[in-house]
Amino acid sequence: MENIKNIASVFSELQAEICHNLELADGKAHFGSDKWKKEIGGGITRVIQDGNVIEKGAVNFSFVEGKLSERMEAVLGEKADNYAATGISSILHAKNPWVPTIHMNVRYFALDNGVSWFGGGIDLTPSIIVPEEARWFHEQLNEICDRSHPDYYSRFKKWADDYYFLPHRNETRGVGGIFFDRLKPDEDVDFEQLFGFVVAQAKSYPLIYSEFMKNSEKPYTEREKRWQSIRRGRYVEFNLVNDRGTKFGLESNGNTESILVSMPANASWEYNFSPEPGSQEEKTQELLKKDINWIGFKTN
Amino acid sequence: MENIKNIASVFSELQAEICHNLELADGKAHFGSDKWKKEIGGGITRVIQDGNVIEKGAVNFSFVEGKLSERMEAVLGEKADNYAATGISSILHAKNPWVPTIHMNVRYFALDNGVSWFGGGIDLTPSIIVPEEARWFHEQLNEICDRSHPDYYSRFKKWADDYYFLPHRNETRGVGGIFFDRLKPDEDVDFEQLFGFVVAQAKSYPLIYSEFMKNSEKPYTEREKRWQSIRRGRYVEFNLVNDRGTKFGLESNGNTESILVSMPANASWEYNFSPEPGSQEEKTQELLKKDINWIGFKTN
Repeated sequence: MENIKNIASVFSELQAEICHNLELADGKAHFGSDKWKKEIGGGITRVIQDGNVIEKGAVNFSFVEGKLSERMEAVLGEKADNYAATGISSILHAKNPWVPTIHMNVRYFALDNGVSWFGGGIDLTPSIIVPEEARWFHEQLNEICDRSHPDYYSRFKKWADDYYFLPHRNETRGVGGIFFDRLKPDEDVDFEQLFGFVVAQAKSYPLIYSEFMKNSEKPYTEREKRWQSIRRGRYVEFNLVNDRGTKFGLESNGNTESILVSMPANASWEYNFSPEPGSQEEKTQELLKKDINWIGFKTN
Repeated sequence: MENIKNIASVFSELQAEICHNLELADGKAHFGSDKWKKEIGGGITRVIQDGNVIEKGAVNFSFVEGKLSERMEAVLGEKADNYAATGISSILHAKNPWVPTIHMNVRYFALDNGVSWFGGGIDLTPSIIVPEEARWFHEQLNEICDRSHPDYYSRFKKWADDYYFLPHRNETRGVGGIFFDRLKPDEDVDFEQLFGFVVAQAKSYPLIYSEFMKNSEKPYTEREKRWQSIRRGRYVEFNLVNDRGTKFGLESNGNTESILVSMPANASWEYNFSPEPGSQEEKTQELLKKDINWIGFKTN
């Protein structure tokens, strides 16, 4: 478990770099910085609000450790006395409905029985899906993955499709991305390479999002704003009903304001809302499916 | 299990009566009526929107039956082949922040091993707590309870305090009310009396709420509206994170639109929001606690 301190220190620097790059792209708002400390550890919650582009967002760093509870042992299928975990978790919501919501997480989890692993991912949730943009996003992830292992993109893309899914709505949260957990060194990828992959993902995150932030120049209508608010309702549903990280955080007496800073500034629910036939909203709804090959998507 | 059909038919009539009385009090909007049918049964979802007073609300009736799964057996601590359940569930959200959100539920659950019970309750969630109003509300519930059993109010009031609680916020959802489950006939209260208690509760619901709807005459500020939206965020958190009924409905492949019609029209989340010292919002925050004796509350 001793190398987790080095990893945490790299993550902490990455947090600063991500915030800096996002501030540059936004051009107005700045990230605040709230240090918190609880019995299980601490972190820095960095929140941005009311920017030119970003309406509400956060880049959180944390480093926690503690006794492994019986429940955690059962969930993890591991026997150990203590665990330590460090990670960065970020969500950005933009004002303009043409700028998607994005989420990124990198994490390292270590047990004192010698077992440890990386987890993480990036995924994109547009209010209105523009297939060319979804393709471009997946191309970026594909490239980052390919630098580490030829199988990573296809494995982690499928994992994201399965994870970012709302069974009660029978729809994906957005256009997916990559998701991975329990990633350990093996004969193909050693520890340093794995760490490098995770760092590369975190570094690319603000650069990828900066491209999407350019959409904030695009004018939008009241109708598109209303649709964004409904889609944000689904985002809230996913985070509160389906997301394991949020559940774990709330149940394990984590820092509630830091965990729920992922919530959008606003969300709405309309009973039985259904988009007009043939509308861009309906087309978006039809694309909220697993297993779409975005990179090969024909956009005529 | 045979008498459940009679109970369902009374509940179905009560649904119509509740909707009728609420329409009279609102004076503008009418409840729609959507019949739904799934493998497990069916129901009538009645939704009201954009009224004079009520912004969004629903009064739902359902009657479902099916095989008792192993998981349900474990949860209920009962062995049986089949179950049947019927109930009314209602939530009303008003536009004006001085008109509280209210929730009411009555239900009957029967197993083919001969075991059956009633459950239900009414609870109130004001955006801004007015202690006199909370006291009046609890007095009404106390009266309904006392007609059936002298212990009911104190038992069910405590149950509501414990149930309508958000551990991750360390606050109650609102000013509570009554909540009960697994209520069976005993030496004090026979089946007909129990059924009568549940019916009385459902009948009083629109009458009690009509009193609160009169607050819609009261002017309100932008600040109060913003606070309402934040409080609605907590309501969403409770329903999606803590409410057993919502969880059970979503997991058991229920009718998602009917279940989540409980969501407010809008909700918002602001990071680390804290009300101004001495403000009515801060006073409300301080009253979101269990075990407040509302009936004996000194309001000088």
